[in-house]
Amino acid sequence: VSAGGHPTPSLDLVPHVLEGRTTAIARLLSRVEVGGDEVLPALAAVYRHAGRAHVVGITGVPGSGKSSLVTKLAAELRRRGRRVAILAVDPSSPFSGGAILGDRIRMGELVRDEGVFIRSFATRGALGGLARPVLDAVDVVDAAGFDTVLVETVGVGQDEVEVVQAAHTTVVVSAPGLGDDIQAIKAGVLEIADVHVVSKADRPDAERTVAELRTMLAMGLAASAAGTDTYRPPVLATSAHTGAGVDELADAIAFHREAMQRSGELERRRRRIAERRLVAAAEGRLWQAFARRRDDDQLHALTERLLRRDVHPRAAADAWLAAGVLANDTVG
Amino acid sequence: VSAGGHPTPSLDLVPHVLEGRTTAIARLLSRVEVGGDEVLPALAAVYRHAGRAHVVGITGVPGSGKSSLVTKLAAELRRRGRRVAILAVDPSSPFSGGAILGDRIRMGELVRDEGVFIRSFATRGALGGLARPVLDAVDVVDAAGFDTVLVETVGVGQDEVEVVQAAHTTVVVSAPGLGDDIQAIKAGVLEIADVHVVSKADRPDAERTVAELRTMLAMGLAASAAGTDTYRPPVLATSAHTGAGVDELADAIAFHREAMQRSGELERRRRRIAERRLVAAAEGRLWQAFARRRDDDQLHALTERLLRRDVHPRAAADAWLAAGVLANDTVG
Repeated sequence: VSAGGHPTPSLDLVPHVLEGRTTAIARLLSRVEVGGDEVLPALAAVYRHAGRAHVVGITGVPGSGKSSLVTKLAAELRRRGRRVAILAVDPSSPFSGGAILGDRIRMGELVRDEGVFIRSFATRGALGGLARPVLDAVDVVDAAGFDTVLVETVGVGQDEVEVVQAAHTTVVVSAPGLGDDIQAIKAGVLEIADVHVVSKADRPDAERTVAELRTMLAMGLAASAAGTDTYRPPVLATSAHTGAGVDELADAIAFHREAMQRSGELERRRRRIAERRLVAAAEGRLWQAFARRRDDDQLHALTERLLRRDVHPRAAADAWLAAGVLANDTVG
Repeated sequence: VSAGGHPTPSLDLVPHVLEGRTTAIARLLSRVEVGGDEVLPALAAVYRHAGRAHVVGITGVPGSGKSSLVTKLAAELRRRGRRVAILAVDPSSPFSGGAILGDRIRMGELVRDEGVFIRSFATRGALGGLARPVLDAVDVVDAAGFDTVLVETVGVGQDEVEVVQAAHTTVVVSAPGLGDDIQAIKAGVLEIADVHVVSKADRPDAERTVAELRTMLAMGLAASAAGTDTYRPPVLATSAHTGAGVDELADAIAFHREAMQRSGELERRRRRIAERRLVAAAEGRLWQAFARRRDDDQLHALTERLLRRDVHPRAAADAWLAAGVLANDTVG
């Protein structure tokens, strides 16, 4: 195959990515989103140079104001001389299209800054979910020299959990006065917080939410994952509106990383993240290999049997898998 | 293996399940949640008798008041003589623990009624996600003779999407005045609505949200999945507080089913649901077979190589899979 007129192979983009060139990064990420084997050599090359960035997951339900907070935090980190990448995995984020004009404008300011890279990911992706392209994207911006990668996700759903689990530091954003049912959904998410933020601190009910979170932490209800002998997750109040608390948030994130480094927790998390990615990749590969060889005629025949209810989906799946589709050479 | 002192095999529960006995249903569902092959013969037996229930997915972000609405709707369906099962897949639901006292009390009233069955599912499940046990549970309550199965989910995340896709009729609940960012998250969910509900109709801003949704629908922005030549998703306003609109919601759900039956859409959806379940089951089986045979020593060795960044997770996965773990007899 001649290269004339064909798009640049992804691997050829890598040197430019490693130099931190925005257009090369953006092009590579577009291919990462598409997936497929063409991009694999590039990802392998990039992976070799990744591993230096501080990956910070920022999660919270829609309406918690985390998108505005991420914008302010990125600006603060820039003031501290750090290069910042924002990867938004949240349909309500202004970065991924659910726009709020004010945030768009602020985002616009960031975009003109070469030390900031912003990319959004659609939530409902193809088979295999959203986590893989986002984790690959973290490698890309990491290798491109961004010091901090802010991964913004809504705190619900399996993909989001997988993404959050790949962060070194997890910030959970709660909004004041969103009601008991909103807070309840975060119960599972609170446990994974290394830093708690109550947003919209300019609102009168923010103090109560801060107090409630501190009580939960004191009761040990939300400290299982992050708490170590030497580290306790702080509860901060921020206002993206006035900018209050954003400075303290940047400090808290930096402090968490230092604390993890001292205690050896950073190393443990890196190992856990690597193992999870390997297992997830194996799962994806297994399915890919099967999808390549699967017998669709049999799929349709078995679907008809399901509709007649004379076979259970799992028994039908076994029949489908056993029908020669999984031979010796399934992988490769 | 002697049966003395051992728990009843799941298959022995099936005759009691088919008679609609609550304790047998609850026991079988506990085993469904655990998973494993022991429960498969029971599920296969149950599946043969399922297929009559109207499966209604009710989705909406936390704070939309869908749990209260589900309670009221179940009561209304009971008044119409239908047997109703509620399967809640939402950590903020009163049925799954994020309790609001008022709802608990109303739920209590329902629980004392033999024509109502209520079960909740934890959101963060084991490998394989939450969708499988919930879809199996739909089969169980369907076979047990419940006429309507209300599956309550929060409208975010892959598991939830999978569950919603298994419903015949999907109700999307929007709350008034929750702000643009809350509404935005529903953009992807609005498309799948067969019936739109604006909850908390007693609030002054409810009318505006109803008007906004009607405008979106008129613009064709949210009608792609549900719209046919003969059916247009209605927009209803309900108040779980006053009970207003719940009657109309029950009508709309029944009307949607009739419209689907007339147009042949019900048959198409049944086929789509069956095929999706078969594919999902195959995916699960494939992974299960691998998990049984996988080489954990190699997993740890490869994880070390990932940490040294001398191999990419996907290449490591290929190596792991190729190392003899996927022989001829992977399945079975």
